[in-house]
Amino acid sequence: MSAAWTPCERMLRACRGERVDRPPVWLMRQAGRYLPEYRALRERASFLESCRDPDLAAEISLQPWRRFGVDAVVIFSDILLPLGGLGLDLAFQPGPVVANPIRAAADLERLAGSAAEAMAPTAEAIRRARQALGPDVPVIGFAGAPWTLAAYATEERLSRDLDALVSMTWREPALADRLLSRMAEISAETLTAQIAAGAHVLQLFDTWAGVLSVERWRAFAGSALQRTLALLPARRPPLIVYARGAGHLLEELAGLGVEVVSLDWRTDLAEAAERVGARVSLQGNLDPAALFAPPERIRAEARRLVDAGRKARGHVANLGHGVTQHTPLEGVAAFVTAVQESAS
Amino acid sequence: MSAAWTPCERMLRACRGERVDRPPVWLMRQAGRYLPEYRALRERASFLESCRDPDLAAEISLQPWRRFGVDAVVIFSDILLPLGGLGLDLAFQPGPVVANPIRAAADLERLAGSAAEAMAPTAEAIRRARQALGPDVPVIGFAGAPWTLAAYATEERLSRDLDALVSMTWREPALADRLLSRMAEISAETLTAQIAAGAHVLQLFDTWAGVLSVERWRAFAGSALQRTLALLPARRPPLIVYARGAGHLLEELAGLGVEVVSLDWRTDLAEAAERVGARVSLQGNLDPAALFAPPERIRAEARRLVDAGRKARGHVANLGHGVTQHTPLEGVAAFVTAVQESAS
Repeated sequence: MSAAWTPCERMLRACRGERVDRPPVWLMRQAGRYLPEYRALRERASFLESCRDPDLAAEISLQPWRRFGVDAVVIFSDILLPLGGLGLDLAFQPGPVVANPIRAAADLERLAGSAAEAMAPTAEAIRRARQALGPDVPVIGFAGAPWTLAAYATEERLSRDLDALVSMTWREPALADRLLSRMAEISAETLTAQIAAGAHVLQLFDTWAGVLSVERWRAFAGSALQRTLALLPARRPPLIVYARGAGHLLEELAGLGVEVVSLDWRTDLAEAAERVGARVSLQGNLDPAALFAPPERIRAEARRLVDAGRKARGHVANLGHGVTQHTPLEGVAAFVTAVQESAS
Repeated sequence: MSAAWTPCERMLRACRGERVDRPPVWLMRQAGRYLPEYRALRERASFLESCRDPDLAAEISLQPWRRFGVDAVVIFSDILLPLGGLGLDLAFQPGPVVANPIRAAADLERLAGSAAEAMAPTAEAIRRARQALGPDVPVIGFAGAPWTLAAYATEERLSRDLDALVSMTWREPALADRLLSRMAEISAETLTAQIAAGAHVLQLFDTWAGVLSVERWRAFAGSALQRTLALLPARRPPLIVYARGAGHLLEELAGLGVEVVSLDWRTDLAEAAERVGARVSLQGNLDPAALFAPPERIRAEARRLVDAGRKARGHVANLGHGVTQHTPLEGVAAFVTAVQESAS
């Protein structure tokens, strides 16, 4: 069948809740270590070097599109890149390690300067990816949300419950608030640089918002996220917000004024659609581990996902979290193809 | 005021949903590294040695009761102790490390034998703690639930999303099922040994159940938990089930047939009480990080918690997770005292 819409139109329409033939499909962390062609490129450059080289970053971003024909290209970068450019001593081993975490008010002065500069290679990678792809394929940019950036900035290695940041909210709430305000600016600068470079859609990763109760989320992560949104240009591409383990925050996220909420695999998609109504479209949310199942099972899960997504205002098919390192290639292919063949 | 009930009666009544003057209060991991007297004892014995020495384990268990006058003594042990006794090469560095994780059906044969033997020191510690405390103070025993035991058993170091176990449920569901059945037996043997030793209350830690969607929970963690419960003696002490990040599983946990569901700090206690009705009592759920706040703030939070708990069938005041290592002693004291002064 001939597609009624280009992948770019389909993606934008799904985000805004307009009618489409089928959900667009892409995968969080689709450019990554599970791809042999990614591992080959990474033999000559470290992770941070790869992020900071526009040609390499653009090339890595295109790899999953070439292999699987996914409906969107998410730019290869890292949410911590702007912090690395602002005086945080950042390394990947392979998880992020911050040698000089923020513990006191004086440490905040370290975060002077503009995140836009640190994001220049990513912005340039977006331009090059757009050139390579032409106008029909959407390019997705992203940033860390303030709470999640603050979580990484306050600990050498992130603890499971964000001990440093969460205890700061109880012990020194004013300091936590100042830190989150600064992170809100950095998050907005990061997104704005990518808007200027031509990103069609933007995703805010508030990966760690789920550790907070609704009340604490409103007081800290939520109000900081609203500051970020208020700092964005009035005319901006659709925004997706992702939070992990955040089923209890769904109504809050849907009330932020973004176009799409991205669900993790634990939240039932059909129930979530009922809870948020017409306020937002939903993205997600196949269990990333389901890609280890036999392809026939994956196709069945993909069809169930597409069916459940019909209850939402709009649906962007995706995983409930990033692709993991040992994911079989045929699992990813089965998922992408099954969604793309679901056109009705 | 004179107490109408002994701490033991108050605890048992709260678990069963009978009227009490105020909620009993204890803290998960109340015997631990934040206590100077614990650190002093640990200078002469490793963590595993301490668990395996009944005198030392009993003494450590009593420390928080002596210092804070908590309403219950939870026995000092570890949920992985039975696995260490059944051929899993277990160390604490300080988090658990399993040198020979279970990856295939053949590995299951390693788990031969009875968990009761491995739990003998814990059972003996319960007897000694009961002797020291007399009949009025309840002693709480505990075990890991099958899903959580399986999570630790399948990875050298537990990954955040239990990659090994969760991918096994998709790739080899029959193997996952066999593993969980074995873990269900181990869990039941662990509890039964503690019942025989005189534990007044038992807690099942399904710390990692929250990574599963409701549907996957039913298929794996939930059905294994039911197997454990079916293997317990018909006459048994009240059971508490704890799961972390499991707000979406609340109705499922409340339907298991246990007396108490222990909430993590993210779930609103009053809302949870409404959701479960008269089926179970609730335990919890102050944010462990709240103990870093100034004592006056902690007292206010404790009073709010007790108020919210009045909506439940019964309420056992506790944290939403274990006490963390750097928790200030005065924070713990403020919480315990505020709950104990809340009698109405």
